Amino acid sequence: MSDLYMGVDLGGTKVLSAVIDDEGNILASCKKRTAGLGSGENVYDTLIESVRGAAEEAEVEIAQMKAIGIGSPGPLNPDTGIVEFTPNLGFVNFPLRDRAQADLGRPVFVNNDVNVGTFGEWKMGAGRGIDNLVGIFVGTGVGGGLILNGELYEGFNRAAGEIGHTVIEIDGDKCGCGNKGCLESVASRTGMTRIIQKKIKKGAETVLEDKFKGDPPMLRSKALYRAYTAGDKVAVETLDAAARALGITIGSIVNLLCPQMVILGGGVIEALGEPYVEKIAQIATDWAFDSNMRGVRITEAQLGDDAGIQGAAAYARMKLEQQA
Amino acid sequence: MSDLYMGVDLGGTKVLSAVIDDEGNILASCKKRTAGLGSGENVYDTLIESVRGAAEEAEVEIAQMKAIGIGSPGPLNPDTGIVEFTPNLGFVNFPLRDRAQADLGRPVFVNNDVNVGTFGEWKMGAGRGIDNLVGIFVGTGVGGGLILNGELYEGFNRAAGEIGHTVIEIDGDKCGCGNKGCLESVASRTGMTRIIQKKIKKGAETVLEDKFKGDPPMLRSKALYRAYTAGDKVAVETLDAAARALGITIGSIVNLLCPQMVILGGGVIEALGEPYVEKIAQIATDWAFDSNMRGVRITEAQLGDDAGIQGAAAYARMKLEQQA
Repeated sequence: MSDLYMGVDLGGTKVLSAVIDDEGNILASCKKRTAGLGSGENVYDTLIESVRGAAEEAEVEIAQMKAIGIGSPGPLNPDTGIVEFTPNLGFVNFPLRDRAQADLGRPVFVNNDVNVGTFGEWKMGAGRGIDNLVGIFVGTGVGGGLILNGELYEGFNRAAGEIGHTVIEIDGDKCGCGNKGCLESVASRTGMTRIIQKKIKKGAETVLEDKFKGDPPMLRSKALYRAYTAGDKVAVETLDAAARALGITIGSIVNLLCPQMVILGGGVIEALGEPYVEKIAQIATDWAFDSNMRGVRITEAQLGDDAGIQGAAAYARMKLEQQA
Repeated sequence: MSDLYMGVDLGGTKVLSAVIDDEGNILASCKKRTAGLGSGENVYDTLIESVRGAAEEAEVEIAQMKAIGIGSPGPLNPDTGIVEFTPNLGFVNFPLRDRAQADLGRPVFVNNDVNVGTFGEWKMGAGRGIDNLVGIFVGTGVGGGLILNGELYEGFNRAAGEIGHTVIEIDGDKCGCGNKGCLESVASRTGMTRIIQKKIKKGAETVLEDKFKGDPPMLRSKALYRAYTAGDKVAVETLDAAARALGITIGSIVNLLCPQMVILGGGVIEALGEPYVEKIAQIATDWAFDSNMRGVRITEAQLGDDAGIQGAAAYARMKLEQQA
């Protein structure tokens, strides 16, 4: 039997755990809700349940796992496995790695969800065999991960990849981070929701008017997609502005980092699909230097929701091999 | 006697060659004018003269050099040593490495001037011992070099570091590269010259009015410095806007790349000095995430005009050792 790893993708609404072999085959998985659990302890218990659930489903013992990888929202310290602060999961300096290692009895490795997702696309998805790539995930926010010279690049403070918080418009719109003009303020679902709310307030008509869900009210990716393809003026304006901001930022990143590939993923990209990725790619190509853009591919992520579990399992495997 | 290397810094106005030992001591140097030479062949001959001149001055033979490093304006291919296209030096697909190697009889290594300058500051200047740093050089343009995970980072197309052409203002002012809103359009001497010319046209009064020199007319860094410290309104507005653009871009880069140090150099920075660097650093610190900025230093380059020769010599040494 081939070596087995557990990949865990912890998010604000769900945790997904999967038993994955060393060729990337998913033997079984187990998904649990994390939304509304109220405390870090409850979220942690649910994570452990989902790990045990996946093992049961695959009819294997946790003890058979070579290692367990967890992708978690950050900021977190990958060396200590401590999650510093994630309001929507209730974690404050939570020793996720050490707790999970003690409870599960196997080596556990933790990194942030976007790094792990990028790692998954690199090892098992769109980026296989590419030494320099940038992953950009567009959803509630805009996150990024970097593979440089054939390694996950984390930088001095281990927090590299915050592509959503590169400034594209000095004195632009306010961003959730407190600054102004960040990519995320225009291109994320949160940013687009806010922009569309403003347009409605100013009297614009749109099919999206009654599509805000949750607290705070947000537009879902599918609603944006439907309005966009139906030609709704407000949706088209807003999503095209987001595509332009993403394309220009990718152009800047190609000039700065010379990747061979840029992988676009996340809920918004998955919903809007290939034509939207092509629009972004065209803008990026127009803006980047020809000499930097030569042979560069800007492409859609391939693993969808599995990027997190695949990346977490592959990351655990790499870390284990590095320790050996 | 310790090992000797030749470092060559080729620029649009001069070429500087120096004999440097493996501890970074400059034994002798030789500077020649390159401005107005008219052709790549003439520039190349002058480069060779300056190399021979430096050896003579140091009373050593070229044959005693372990290797020769050349920093040249790009774009160029560091693998082949071919300079693709530099209008102000008259190079078009010029095989700089192979020609110099044949004429000088020693191993020659070529990289672009900004990479080599960053390499010099890393090995011998402000960045010694730092594994992740960004060099930003503000002069006629805004160039950048990256040291990531203890290596010069070049990326897939070997052209990483084009910090001057990251967009900070979608639909901002036109940049020399053809795009709009690049950092360089606001923060370089070329960009500031254009902005100040516009202000004068609109009737603004400034001591800089009769300080434009050359063809095309440009403001020198020293003139900018004098007007700035004299409180000239046009100079203060323009240089403060440049500092803000540089600071915000550095903030974005700290979020994206998590360097431990950002080194600021080049003619404008050298002329304006420490208070200006501190202003830029303060803005960067305000804009970057605290978690990414923790322990990061934003500091002035230490080597001044010697960064190029020191970097070229150190780069040649590294490449030679890698081949061994």
